[in-house]
Amino acid sequence: MVKRLRIIVMALFLALTLAATSFAGAHATGHTKADEKGPGILLVTFGTSIPEAQVSFTNIEKKVKTAFPGVPVRWAYTSYIIRHKLAKQGRNIDSVEIALAKMMDEGYTQVAVQSLHMIPGAEFHDIQVNARLFGQMSGGFDNIAIGYPMLSTAADLDRAVESFIRVIPAERKKDEAVVLMGHGTHHPSDAFYSAMMYKFQKADPNIYVGTVEGHPTLDDVKEMLIKKGVKKAYLIPFMSVAGDHARNDMAGAEEDSWQSILTKAGIECVPVLKGLAEYDILADIWVDHLKTAMKHLK
Amino acid sequence: MVKRLRIIVMALFLALTLAATSFAGAHATGHTKADEKGPGILLVTFGTSIPEAQVSFTNIEKKVKTAFPGVPVRWAYTSYIIRHKLAKQGRNIDSVEIALAKMMDEGYTQVAVQSLHMIPGAEFHDIQVNARLFGQMSGGFDNIAIGYPMLSTAADLDRAVESFIRVIPAERKKDEAVVLMGHGTHHPSDAFYSAMMYKFQKADPNIYVGTVEGHPTLDDVKEMLIKKGVKKAYLIPFMSVAGDHARNDMAGAEEDSWQSILTKAGIECVPVLKGLAEYDILADIWVDHLKTAMKHLK
Amino acid sequence: MVKRLRIIVMALFLALTLAATSFAGAHATGHTKADEKGPGILLVTFGTSIPEAQVSFTNIEKKVKTAFPGVPVRWAYTSYIIRHKLAKQGRNIDSVEIALAKMMDEGYTQVAVQSLHMIPGAEFHDIQVNARLFGQMSGGFDNIAIGYPMLSTAADLDRAVESFIRVIPAERKKDEAVVLMGHGTHHPSDAFYSAMMYKFQKADPNIYVGTVEGHPTLDDVKEMLIKKGVKKAYLIPFMSVAGDHARNDMAGAEEDSWQSILTKAGIECVPVLKGLAEYDILADIWVDHLKTAMKHLK
Amino acid sequence: MVKRLRIIVMALFLALTLAATSFAGAHATGHTKADEKGPGILLVTFGTSIPEAQVSFTNIEKKVKTAFPGVPVRWAYTSYIIRHKLAKQGRNIDSVEIALAKMMDEGYTQVAVQSLHMIPGAEFHDIQVNARLFGQMSGGFDNIAIGYPMLSTAADLDRAVESFIRVIPAERKKDEAVVLMGHGTHHPSDAFYSAMMYKFQKADPNIYVGTVEGHPTLDDVKEMLIKKGVKKAYLIPFMSVAGDHARNDMAGAEEDSWQSILTKAGIECVPVLKGLAEYDILADIWVDHLKTAMKHLK
Repeated sequence: MVKRLRIIVMALFLALTLAATSFAGAHATGHTKADEKGPGILLVTFGTSIPEAQVSFTNIEKKVKTAFPGVPVRWAYTSYIIRHKLAKQGRNIDSVEIALAKMMDEGYTQVAVQSLHMIPGAEFHDIQVNARLFGQMSGGFDNIAIGYPMLSTAADLDRAVESFIRVIPAERKKDEAVVLMGHGTHHPSDAFYSAMMYKFQKADPNIYVGTVEGHPTLDDVKEMLIKKGVKKAYLIPFMSVAGDHARNDMAGAEEDSWQSILTKAGIECVPVLKGLAEYDILADIWVDHLKTAMKHLK
Repeated sequence: MVKRLRIIVMALFLALTLAATSFAGAHATGHTKADEKGPGILLVTFGTSIPEAQVSFTNIEKKVKTAFPGVPVRWAYTSYIIRHKLAKQGRNIDSVEIALAKMMDEGYTQVAVQSLHMIPGAEFHDIQVNARLFGQMSGGFDNIAIGYPMLSTAADLDRAVESFIRVIPAERKKDEAVVLMGHGTHHPSDAFYSAMMYKFQKADPNIYVGTVEGHPTLDDVKEMLIKKGVKKAYLIPFMSVAGDHARNDMAGAEEDSWQSILTKAGIECVPVLKGLAEYDILADIWVDHLKTAMKHLK
Repeated sequence: MVKRLRIIVMALFLALTLAATSFAGAHATGHTKADEKGPGILLVTFGTSIPEAQVSFTNIEKKVKTAFPGVPVRWAYTSYIIRHKLAKQGRNIDSVEIALAKMMDEGYTQVAVQSLHMIPGAEFHDIQVNARLFGQMSGGFDNIAIGYPMLSTAADLDRAVESFIRVIPAERKKDEAVVLMGHGTHHPSDAFYSAMMYKFQKADPNIYVGTVEGHPTLDDVKEMLIKKGVKKAYLIPFMSVAGDHARNDMAGAEEDSWQSILTKAGIECVPVLKGLAEYDILADIWVDHLKTAMKHLK
Repeated sequence: MVKRLRIIVMALFLALTLAATSFAGAHATGHTKADEKGPGILLVTFGTSIPEAQVSFTNIEKKVKTAFPGVPVRWAYTSYIIRHKLAKQGRNIDSVEIALAKMMDEGYTQVAVQSLHMIPGAEFHDIQVNARLFGQMSGGFDNIAIGYPMLSTAADLDRAVESFIRVIPAERKKDEAVVLMGHGTHHPSDAFYSAMMYKFQKADPNIYVGTVEGHPTLDDVKEMLIKKGVKKAYLIPFMSVAGDHARNDMAGAEEDSWQSILTKAGIECVPVLKGLAEYDILADIWVDHLKTAMKHLK
């Protein structure tokens, strides 16, 4: 079957191959490619090496398989260190590029790559660039579609705010703060956390967004909490998993954890060790982005 | 209208645009793109600054317009010097990249680029690489298809041999040689000239292929002519146009022209100053390649 | 560490060319390329057809030429409609792709493309993708570097806030609002405007950011103004130029202009018809981004 | 002059990362990349599942390791069927894309990909396109250089002819033919076999080149042998390995093997079951191409 490559140069070569019927059966000694397969899904996350945090990924995978019954689902972790650590424990997980190269080799013609990241930052940028390059490969996929991270369009931001508010622990009172801990990044998309600060504040002036490595900083948040006279705060990871950052940077016993710093500032802290992908209402945002991506395949 | 980009990443962005109906009429102050146009054709040649040689291009263009009535036909010359020289005379001809950038800007969604070269050498390689990159541009063409130069598949080689033999001057006798002057190149595709030497020799042992800048060399040909005791040779450019190479390197009065060298070796020379694109039977090979390219559009 | 990406495939071809010394002088009949030139700068903006708004571009160009004396500066407008309108008036301005194709043809080996946009949105994305593709072209640039729009890194956001505050009209009193009108976009980077709302509010709770086509909306801003009991507001375009949007959507006499709507809500409006690129302190952000890009050339 | 292509867009992001020193140690919880490694070599062949044919690859690998002591050498087979067959026997060999994705993941910054093919045909084209795409990946190689197959430049063709003539079995007499069996292809590069026919015939009119799947055909060769009255022919694979094609299509017992067909035509056949890579003088051509590629790294 002639592949439908948008860049037709290749197609010309292939068309000529078909025209050259006198060579039928040519590669009898070793077909260069596997039989073509239908669509496949690649879920991409930073990864985590903390077993308890896996529940986030398990939940997403279950939802994805329900949404696309029969479509093979693969995983790739972008963190080399985490993959390396897991490999020592006997769990081999691919990089995005190895995962795509394998799917290409196995004959997948259609692949939807779903980013399970929060924002379209450096990692999403890498996935996007590299998946597009795979889409241009000779002898490779007909189509690659890439699903957005959770926060992308203005509608996503609003949906995330509304959905998140519904999963705040029921016992939290209006005068008690909710502090979200995002990752933060050197990438321009660090601005998404400031945008979320505005959006959450607009919806509930007692919800705050800070980041470990970007802006707003914990200092920014602490200053707002003190100014408002907050006495108690729920600390919640603004990440897909409650992994190392949540357990150590946010809720760790060390002096420089968010919990330690805010407690020292006289604010009682209640850490919530659940990743956002554990909440169906939030996981659904990623799944819906995957649905959009899948619609672009075929 | 949503463009059909094989690489779907863009499409996702565009899809979201459509979804964002509340922004309808957004770009009222300055649409970023022209209205979409149907297919266009870009004919690409090295170019020539010799007015008499233009007849080759005129013939090809006439044939192309007949084959695709109503489809706009553009030209690009790959030689900077020739374009520069013509510009001084008031004739502005674009480079391949400028021509494609203009067509992209004007809203062409489908472009067939037809190489009027003899072999898939360095210039064809450049056209192919760069046209493909245009095909990947954001906001650009839906499809770009590239038509092969005259000599590409094995069938092309055979067709060129058979067609050429029919246009040899009728007065030529079997014991008179026909010497084809190809351009030759440092590119691996220089091998096509040696391949044609074998093919022509097989069809008529008194037809020879030499090149100005590659292999076989004029020395190779001269040695064969002398060995065979040839007394008279028709010199014919193995190029689309009878331009500078044909008029000077082949048939010029200088000591080192092919005519001078072979004459000195005792072989009477009859130069034929017609480019191959002037012969319908040969021009049709390019036109047929363009037809194949056009079939891959839309 | 800055990665030095080099696609060597082409280099191999060129190296082989050099090796083929026996072909020296080969292209005597028509060099395919122009003589190599040093670096060039391409400034890219959406464009404007309003003559009075040109002062923004004039200011940026003057600053760029002062920063890089002797380096040729070209302009490209991304808006087809504006270019089309200007062309009718005899002013021909290129698209990004035509401008780059011309620079490639003229022999520029190094090009810095500076986006004069506010955010890394859809237009910056297009510039980035397409300029990169030009960087991969056969026979083209050695290097292409792309300068960020005004708002990119966290440091840019802070710098823009601080700089902007310094250019607010001196007569504005603290209880008078400053309302910035950004463009807004369907692209995920629409989040930058919400991020700026948070950043400005943090610096001065009486500065607001709204957008014409994205979020925050004018309704969002109006609600905040009314809640705060604002009586007077300075309306300032959050755009490089005070073009059509500033003159009509912001300060126009129509019922649905920002000025009309806010006036109707009982807020006295003082429109400021200056583009941000007219203020040196803000124009310098773009110029500094260009400096970073230029450092990556050669 | 060798062009140094650098796609700087990425570099800008990385540079900005460095500028953001306040985020130092940011990814303490999981570095996204492995430590950088020096150059690596990837040898690419169609592959063979015949154990006795492996001697060709063993010889090349030994030579490569001697030429580049300490540089890791990897293999990739382009044939899916052969890899699949070997995998069942417990030998896992990667596709080109999987091999490159692994090297990228392991931190190689410089990779030379050496094609062990005979001609720059469809498989070389695929390697070239896909390796270049790997060279453009975000977070990937600084440099990728690709070494030509055996037959590429005019000098290669001449060197191959001269070298091959030296390895013809010593007992072969001048009036005995040497028939080379090349693979042949639907790709335009099929012309290389016709070119070699001309080159070999010029050097020794009793050496012939045929192909299994392209041109010249066995019929073409048989006709020439009969015309010349050849009584005995040495059949030699014009391939890197003496694999399935050599053992079956060339020297097999079946009625339609070259040996059977020529024997039936009254020509005594002496098959030589050695791949060209087993002869040092021929293997050196590939190794020299790899040397050129390695020079373009770093």
